[in-house]
Amino acid sequence: MHRKLRIAMIGGGKGAFIGSIHRLAFSMDGHYELVAGAFSADPIVSQNAGEELQLSRDRVYPSFHTLIHQEALLPTAVRAEVICIVTPNHVHYEPAVLALDAGFHVILEKPMTFSLGEARSLHKKVLASDRFFMLCHTYTGYPMVKQARQLIQAGLLGEIRKVFVEYPQGWLHTYLEGSKQKQADWRTDPNRSGLGGAMGDIGTHAFNLAEYVSGLQVSRLCAAVNTIVTGRKIDDDGAALLQFNNGATGVLMATQVAAGAENNISIRIYGEKGGLSWKQEDNNSLQIVWPDRPAECWRAGTGYLSEYATHNSRTPAGHPEGYLEAFANLYRNFALAILAKENDALPSAVCTDFPGSKEGLRGMVFVEAMIKSSQQQTWVEFTH
Amino acid sequence: MHRKLRIAMIGGGKGAFIGSIHRLAFSMDGHYELVAGAFSADPIVSQNAGEELQLSRDRVYPSFHTLIHQEALLPTAVRAEVICIVTPNHVHYEPAVLALDAGFHVILEKPMTFSLGEARSLHKKVLASDRFFMLCHTYTGYPMVKQARQLIQAGLLGEIRKVFVEYPQGWLHTYLEGSKQKQADWRTDPNRSGLGGAMGDIGTHAFNLAEYVSGLQVSRLCAAVNTIVTGRKIDDDGAALLQFNNGATGVLMATQVAAGAENNISIRIYGEKGGLSWKQEDNNSLQIVWPDRPAECWRAGTGYLSEYATHNSRTPAGHPEGYLEAFANLYRNFALAILAKENDALPSAVCTDFPGSKEGLRGMVFVEAMIKSSQQQTWVEFTH
Amino acid sequence: MHRKLRIAMIGGGKGAFIGSIHRLAFSMDGHYELVAGAFSADPIVSQNAGEELQLSRDRVYPSFHTLIHQEALLPTAVRAEVICIVTPNHVHYEPAVLALDAGFHVILEKPMTFSLGEARSLHKKVLASDRFFMLCHTYTGYPMVKQARQLIQAGLLGEIRKVFVEYPQGWLHTYLEGSKQKQADWRTDPNRSGLGGAMGDIGTHAFNLAEYVSGLQVSRLCAAVNTIVTGRKIDDDGAALLQFNNGATGVLMATQVAAGAENNISIRIYGEKGGLSWKQEDNNSLQIVWPDRPAECWRAGTGYLSEYATHNSRTPAGHPEGYLEAFANLYRNFALAILAKENDALPSAVCTDFPGSKEGLRGMVFVEAMIKSSQQQTWVEFTH
Amino acid sequence: MHRKLRIAMIGGGKGAFIGSIHRLAFSMDGHYELVAGAFSADPIVSQNAGEELQLSRDRVYPSFHTLIHQEALLPTAVRAEVICIVTPNHVHYEPAVLALDAGFHVILEKPMTFSLGEARSLHKKVLASDRFFMLCHTYTGYPMVKQARQLIQAGLLGEIRKVFVEYPQGWLHTYLEGSKQKQADWRTDPNRSGLGGAMGDIGTHAFNLAEYVSGLQVSRLCAAVNTIVTGRKIDDDGAALLQFNNGATGVLMATQVAAGAENNISIRIYGEKGGLSWKQEDNNSLQIVWPDRPAECWRAGTGYLSEYATHNSRTPAGHPEGYLEAFANLYRNFALAILAKENDALPSAVCTDFPGSKEGLRGMVFVEAMIKSSQQQTWVEFTH
Repeated sequence: MHRKLRIAMIGGGKGAFIGSIHRLAFSMDGHYELVAGAFSADPIVSQNAGEELQLSRDRVYPSFHTLIHQEALLPTAVRAEVICIVTPNHVHYEPAVLALDAGFHVILEKPMTFSLGEARSLHKKVLASDRFFMLCHTYTGYPMVKQARQLIQAGLLGEIRKVFVEYPQGWLHTYLEGSKQKQADWRTDPNRSGLGGAMGDIGTHAFNLAEYVSGLQVSRLCAAVNTIVTGRKIDDDGAALLQFNNGATGVLMATQVAAGAENNISIRIYGEKGGLSWKQEDNNSLQIVWPDRPAECWRAGTGYLSEYATHNSRTPAGHPEGYLEAFANLYRNFALAILAKENDALPSAVCTDFPGSKEGLRGMVFVEAMIKSSQQQTWVEFTH
Repeated sequence: MHRKLRIAMIGGGKGAFIGSIHRLAFSMDGHYELVAGAFSADPIVSQNAGEELQLSRDRVYPSFHTLIHQEALLPTAVRAEVICIVTPNHVHYEPAVLALDAGFHVILEKPMTFSLGEARSLHKKVLASDRFFMLCHTYTGYPMVKQARQLIQAGLLGEIRKVFVEYPQGWLHTYLEGSKQKQADWRTDPNRSGLGGAMGDIGTHAFNLAEYVSGLQVSRLCAAVNTIVTGRKIDDDGAALLQFNNGATGVLMATQVAAGAENNISIRIYGEKGGLSWKQEDNNSLQIVWPDRPAECWRAGTGYLSEYATHNSRTPAGHPEGYLEAFANLYRNFALAILAKENDALPSAVCTDFPGSKEGLRGMVFVEAMIKSSQQQTWVEFTH
Repeated sequence: MHRKLRIAMIGGGKGAFIGSIHRLAFSMDGHYELVAGAFSADPIVSQNAGEELQLSRDRVYPSFHTLIHQEALLPTAVRAEVICIVTPNHVHYEPAVLALDAGFHVILEKPMTFSLGEARSLHKKVLASDRFFMLCHTYTGYPMVKQARQLIQAGLLGEIRKVFVEYPQGWLHTYLEGSKQKQADWRTDPNRSGLGGAMGDIGTHAFNLAEYVSGLQVSRLCAAVNTIVTGRKIDDDGAALLQFNNGATGVLMATQVAAGAENNISIRIYGEKGGLSWKQEDNNSLQIVWPDRPAECWRAGTGYLSEYATHNSRTPAGHPEGYLEAFANLYRNFALAILAKENDALPSAVCTDFPGSKEGLRGMVFVEAMIKSSQQQTWVEFTH
Repeated sequence: MHRKLRIAMIGGGKGAFIGSIHRLAFSMDGHYELVAGAFSADPIVSQNAGEELQLSRDRVYPSFHTLIHQEALLPTAVRAEVICIVTPNHVHYEPAVLALDAGFHVILEKPMTFSLGEARSLHKKVLASDRFFMLCHTYTGYPMVKQARQLIQAGLLGEIRKVFVEYPQGWLHTYLEGSKQKQADWRTDPNRSGLGGAMGDIGTHAFNLAEYVSGLQVSRLCAAVNTIVTGRKIDDDGAALLQFNNGATGVLMATQVAAGAENNISIRIYGEKGGLSWKQEDNNSLQIVWPDRPAECWRAGTGYLSEYATHNSRTPAGHPEGYLEAFANLYRNFALAILAKENDALPSAVCTDFPGSKEGLRGMVFVEAMIKSSQQQTWVEFTH
């Protein structure tokens, strides 16, 4: 067991769904210790959250500016090393840049930024920095998602021809923002969410999953993006025809108005030789179909999986892991990569297999392409 | 039990997959007696098929022309009443028109015709005729598909917002036509299949299922249609963004190159209040999801189903019916409609709930729209 | 196509669930023509059923005695060849024996007889006869059940260690016989059903499935058989610990009071090397699990199945068959066996793979063992 | 957020599967801080484990005796408050008793003790103590298991009639202990495992699940317990017919030789009005069937669940939790109960809903009843 990394949070105060998820995720494997936070733009709310989390009062800050500034002044052995940013999208870019500049490793919620311009700038910043940066595309943390990618990399399915990815949710099927429900409120506000609503919030997850598992890149798309619920100011639904850089084609769907749908993000990929499918609802299984022999179900925790899948499991087969463990895998790999470098070792490829600023930038390109294609009713090329 | 209808087949000789399926389907409920056939364009093949089927030699014809001509000359009590046409697409229009003109009821395989022009003409012919006409969109014969339609008609899901339909097959993932395999051979030949390959063969099924269950009509679409297997002369894959006449949107996918996929046509529909899904692989179940209460699984053969679903079942719950029974439902309803009229009764709405020339015409409009949209890379309006 | 066999029915009049199932089953593949019947002990009911079925009036009989007697007097080319007996259990033995004695082939519903004594006697009679005899254990007609048996015969799972079979139904969870519902009425009447209620009705199916798939024989059991619904005169529920002739052990469960359960008979078998499972609800799949490699799903209609499974399918993979097709497989194989013999050919092993009097006798031994073991609260040996 | 409880571990050193699971479970929600341990009977192994876990050297002990003795001498604000015992079964009783006597709260792995006599004695000790005691029947920590229990308590299914519980594993399908694999080694050694092998290891889980969900108590059983793998010294498989205190009956199965099976513990219960089923493989769903309306699937994280289920979830619907979260629920509730009492508050019923010594004693009665019934081939009454 290595030493614990000291982590600070920006955002994640009361009512912030994802804040507590992050804390569960980074606590799980014992690689992090929460030492500081600026949990809200409201100093009182921030302080209350800090108390609730039993932080020392002097490490709870009234703003992300003060957090970054003050923590940087603390002795090396005391100050936070990693800053985790879980604020609404319009407060991603500035703290991320400030944190990197101040020498912190950064973990950032998706979508990477408010605008594509910010994304381009942040990506450059990350490339130029010697700090680690992670973007929280949780679903690529699942062991069977990693196994799927490995099987395709190994050529098991042959050349990839078709990629179908979808992310159906239903929680915004009514005008929930009218009730000021916190999650709905900012996610449906273009001033905080950015160009895309559902496209930024979950479309980017679907997009990232498609590129991660297939190992391909979307080169162009043709989309229909909709605002279905009356009164809403931003998209809550969309779909796109996809074309990939190897000539493969596919479909992406992401919606937040599928009344009754929970969160069953899923992917299916077909190659020349066979196909695979994975869905979050049954995340410990990876289904593979063949034209000429029985279908297979590969299972998490078994002995026949790749190093990538095995490394990202904690329990033996039949003891299901889930979303929190997938999230924890991101955090664990991030920590192992940092600690390896600290020990002058090269982090293994397995540990650096987490999404970064390149994936973040591509996500923002995706959002812009979706909106633009839909508005213009044409195919749109991906350009960075 | 009513008297049996006398049926004649055009097509369906040796190696014709769908021919034996039709015979199983129309035999199941005892409403038909096969009395004549022109089973192949090759008179020898036709005669052999007739023998195999124990038909009287003089009722086995060397061509559909002779069949229609000769049968029409037979005494009313002897001659075929229904002509079932299961030939490749380029031999749909002519026998259908001749048969209707000669006073036969007609059952026709999908897609309705070789070309959209033929479809328009045949539809007019049917409208002007007093004969019954059925197009074999088998999947709407499933009891739980009918139940799905009924639930939507009854407003259970509220206004429909999203329709996702897909039809993944894998049997054409290689250049199967190179081996002259009979099914692949004509289906991939534009001179026999028509404008669409996969789009005509299975895309029309998916399209019909979407319109039947939703009760809506596609008003425009934007498609990407592909020929994926090298050497193939026609599309084997495609997808489209859909827009419906009530403003709902959706996605259609149909592919024959999804290596390892069998035939799991499926549909998901979301309305303001909830969603439903059905897939052929689990055809006796209809899944319904709600935002605020447990998901439901409605099951074939139970006591709580609509008259439409109940009428189209034969076994009690838990005794699974399948594809042949769905097909047989089409045949049975067609017979009951004919027999009701024969007895000067109005056939019940339940019995006339089978696809006809309107559905056939819409299918051909769909095929053309798919190809055109894909070629032009634009949205295409549906016009008849 | 061979000539059609002429079949007569005893039982199966109005309200008899299984009568119409039999007619659907023997009609499906065109091997039978219904020529005669004694559909009820009530001559009027019988005559009405005959009319409904469009039989010639003189071939509809007021009793099974007259049917057997009169048909036997008809010319060879006219008279029924096969007699199908679908009466309540107390009217199994006599017509079966009379029919065999009169030279008819016999198809009999399960359980084979009212009493074990009758079963022993009938089994001897069948062994001594040159007529074919089939007992309707429908579930062994499913292609994937046959595949399961073949895989075990081929040693794929190694020596069999565990057999779990269950048959949960719910339709008798209330005192349905109080309403005189026809199915419940006789099945819960010891004077018509015999020693066992649920044990005879569905326990024998589960027992037969276990022995058929495993290829083993139960050698002893220890049972708890219950009458759960107040007022009922016969068992409606039971379970047993099983021991097989190779030393394997297992559990059998059969109940008709599992409120909400449909008819999902299922089996799981584990050997030294792996396990398999099949359930009727998903009858076109056979699941196989291995300790050291991915689980497999073998699917009906695919190209990698055994001759037994392939012979008992009609549709390509992904076009689900079900209960009626399984039932039709029994009838088809029975016909093919008869026709082969008629042509002085040896029927293939695939065609004679249907349950007979030996299975019927074992079923009756099972029922008696269940009741006796439960009453004595001890293990009971199987003896014939 | 309350203060963290200081916890010490007995057992759980290198190679101990369950040790790391416990640490993941008690770390998840931030209620515990690991402060001490005696991780192995081998002082070197214990010390290494302590280092790995970054414990202070002086809090890592060479034996459980020294741990309990020395920790008790530490100042109140420093010493461990909870002792978690994850040793093989023969080292359960002594440390548990010593720890309670020394004033520690105790968390103990199942089965509770090596022998039934020890269980009786420990149960008395717990009753007489003012310390909290928890037995790790993890599966009752799942939210949908709790929901199942609540639905039954609320009478939704009516009087319970049938209980089927099973626990199939395959990891001991070969003579694994021959390789000295650590888990197999002690679990198959009667001197360390106790009277039961599989019956103690997983049979007790199945038994506990049955009693917890049904709210009933087994009053008698008739079992067949087997040692299937050659050379093994203890049972690796078994099944029993069950009778419950309300007259309900059922079946329990537990095996570790089902080659290919993972860990899919499951339960099905039928009452007068309907039935429910839950299986670990799909732990976020609870299936309910009704005789007269659609089946339902209740899902974790939704808004319609009982307080018990909601309290034991962390994520919204569609973000699957799993085994570690179920385990963490036990730990969390245990902590909340302790902290409530510390604050002079009555812990809520939701928090004290974890298994204790009564469940542990019943488990040991179960093991003895299974073995005895199997040896004597008779029904055995449950007596405490």
